[in-house]
Amino acid sequence: MGAGAVRLGVAGFGNVGREFVRLLLERRGLLEERYGLRVGVSFVADSRGALCAAGGGVLEWGLVERALEAPRGGVSRLPGGRPGLGVEGALEECGTDVLVDATPSRYEDVEPALGWWLRVLGSGGAVVAADKAPLAVACDRLAVYIYSKPRLYYKATVMAGTPLIDLLRWGYAGRRVERVVGALNGTTNYLLTRAVEGASFGEALREAQERGYAEPDPSADLEGFDLAAKASIVSCTLGGWIPLGRVERRARVDGEAFERARRATAAGRRLRYVAVVEPAAGRAYVDLLEAEPGSVLYDIRGVENAVVVESAEAGPVMLRGPGAGARATAAALLSDLVEAASVMGVL
Amino acid sequence: MGAGAVRLGVAGFGNVGREFVRLLLERRGLLEERYGLRVGVSFVADSRGALCAAGGGVLEWGLVERALEAPRGGVSRLPGGRPGLGVEGALEECGTDVLVDATPSRYEDVEPALGWWLRVLGSGGAVVAADKAPLAVACDRLAVYIYSKPRLYYKATVMAGTPLIDLLRWGYAGRRVERVVGALNGTTNYLLTRAVEGASFGEALREAQERGYAEPDPSADLEGFDLAAKASIVSCTLGGWIPLGRVERRARVDGEAFERARRATAAGRRLRYVAVVEPAAGRAYVDLLEAEPGSVLYDIRGVENAVVVESAEAGPVMLRGPGAGARATAAALLSDLVEAASVMGVL
Repeated sequence: MGAGAVRLGVAGFGNVGREFVRLLLERRGLLEERYGLRVGVSFVADSRGALCAAGGGVLEWGLVERALEAPRGGVSRLPGGRPGLGVEGALEECGTDVLVDATPSRYEDVEPALGWWLRVLGSGGAVVAADKAPLAVACDRLAVYIYSKPRLYYKATVMAGTPLIDLLRWGYAGRRVERVVGALNGTTNYLLTRAVEGASFGEALREAQERGYAEPDPSADLEGFDLAAKASIVSCTLGGWIPLGRVERRARVDGEAFERARRATAAGRRLRYVAVVEPAAGRAYVDLLEAEPGSVLYDIRGVENAVVVESAEAGPVMLRGPGAGARATAAALLSDLVEAASVMGVL
Repeated sequence: MGAGAVRLGVAGFGNVGREFVRLLLERRGLLEERYGLRVGVSFVADSRGALCAAGGGVLEWGLVERALEAPRGGVSRLPGGRPGLGVEGALEECGTDVLVDATPSRYEDVEPALGWWLRVLGSGGAVVAADKAPLAVACDRLAVYIYSKPRLYYKATVMAGTPLIDLLRWGYAGRRVERVVGALNGTTNYLLTRAVEGASFGEALREAQERGYAEPDPSADLEGFDLAAKASIVSCTLGGWIPLGRVERRARVDGEAFERARRATAAGRRLRYVAVVEPAAGRAYVDLLEAEPGSVLYDIRGVENAVVVESAEAGPVMLRGPGAGARATAAALLSDLVEAASVMGVL
C-alpha cells in the first residue's frame, strides 16, 4: 500500500459484499477522520464480470453507489463494466492494495480463492476475508501471513459479530491455549433453542429457513461441516493447525439430537453443538455437549454464539455474542480493513 | 528492533516484573520455535538500581535467573549491577528495543514513566506495559502509538488475564462502540460476592486483604479510582479519550453498598461496581449497577471480571474472565511482546 487512498478490490457481490460496500460508503468519513485512512474501490467483481477502475485508480463513489442498485450478477453492465472479467483478471488489471474476499466458502474448489489470496499477499498487499475455505483447507500456505507478515485478516470467518479471532490471534499470542470450545454455528444454536421450546426438528428447520437462518440445503450446518471449518480456522490461528479433513465430526443435529436436547434441559443442562480445539493434543472435533448453568455456552439464545477459552496461565475466558449476519459480517470486514492498514503502517 | 535478539528492558521488579521474567525464561524456547522470535534482556531495573548489559548486548540468562533470587531492591548488587541507575539511565546506557513497564501505576507522578515511554516509542521501539497511569493521564500524547504507529501494547492494564484490550483495539477498529460496561475491579467484585454470602463489609475487606486481593490501603479500589483509570484506558483505546480526571465516580463500595447488594440479590439481581464508557456521548463514569440474570455481569464470581460491549453494528458482546493476578499479568505482557514483534515486523 502506498500514500493516497488504499485501493480495495471487492470479490463477491452478494449479501455480504453489498453490505460491506454499503457500510464503507457510510463510514468512509469516519475512517478518514478517526484514523486518517483514505480508501477507494478499485474493482467490484460478481459472478459474471467486474466493474474496474482504469489506470490503477479508483471508481467514482457515485458509480459504487450505482453498483449497489444493480441486480445480482449485473455490475459489469454498468458504465466501464467488464463482462466476463473474473477476480483473477481484475487483480491483474485494476490495481488493488487490499482484496476483500466476500465470495462464498468453496471447500471443494478452494484453488481460485487461494490463488487470489496468495497473489495479493505475496506482492505485499492485504487480504480481508469472509471466505472460510482457504484457511480451513490451506492454512499451511497462509500461516506466514498471520504472525510473521501480518497481512491476512479474517475475523469475519468465525463469530463475525464478535471479535473472537482478534482475541485469539493477538490476545493469546505467546500463551498456551489448552482448549477452545465454541457454539459457533448460529443455525444449530437456533434449532437447539427451538428444540427445548417444544418444536419438532422439521418445524424448527422450516422456521430457520423461513427466517434466513438456514440454507435451502442445510446439511453443512446440520452435519457439522461449518463447525469443522471454524475449528480448523481456530487451530490455524493458534499455531497448531488441524486441516478441515482431520476435524472429526462426532455428531449431527437431527430429530434424535432434539430428543437429547429435551432430556438435557429436564436435567438442568442445555445441549449445544460445538467445535472443540485442543492445540497441544493436535485434535479438533465437532460434538454435542451438555452445558452447565453459569457457562456462556448455557446462556446463549437463538442464533447467538459463545466460546470458552482455557489456557495454562489463567482461568477460563468466556465470550458470547452475535455470529454472522450480513451487517455483522460487513462490520468485521471493515474492522479488518482498519486493522490491516494500522498493522501494515498505512495510517 | 533489528535482526538478532530483541532486547527487552524490564522496569519494575516486584511481583509482576519477576513473574514476567520467570514466564519469559519458561517460554523463550516456545517464542523461538513458534514465532521465530529470539529475545534477550538488556536491563532489569528495580527501585534501587539496575542490572545492565554492556555494549548494547543482553544479559546472560544465568544472571537473569540470579536476579529472580535477589531480594527486593537487590538486582544492582549482582555482578555488573549499577546501584543508583534508574530506568532513564538504563534506557540511555543499556540499549533496549522493547521497554516492559511493570512499575506500579503512579497517577500523581506520571512524568517519569511517561517520559520513558515517549523516549522508547519516539525512537522506534515498543512499549509493553502493565502500568496504567500514562494512558489514563496522557492518552493524548500516546494515542498515535495505538493505531498510526502501533508500538504501544497494554493488555495487562485492564482485565489482564482476559484479552479485552485486543478485542476492543483490533476487533472494534472502524466500528461504532456505543457503550462499554465492565466489572473490571477484582477487589470490589470479590467484596460484593462476599456481601451476598452474608459477610459484613469489615470482615469481607479483612479477608480480601489476607488473600492478597486488596491492598493495605484499599481506597483506590473502594473509591473507584482504579475503575476510573480503566474506563479512561478503554476510552483511549476506542478513540474518544476521557481523561482520568473527567471520569465521574458516582458511588463507592462501603457498608451501605453491602446493604444494597443484599437487597438486589433478594430481588433476583446482583449488585456490581462498574466502569461505564460511552464514547459518542464523551462520557465515562463509575457506578453501582444491578445486573440481571443472563448477563455476564450477573454471572461472575469472586475476583473474576466481566464486560459488555454494545455497538451500532450487531448485538451486545459479553466477555468474562480473570483479572489481574501476577501470573495473568505476566502472561499479558508476554503476549504483548509477541504482538508487538509481529506487528512491527520483527518475526
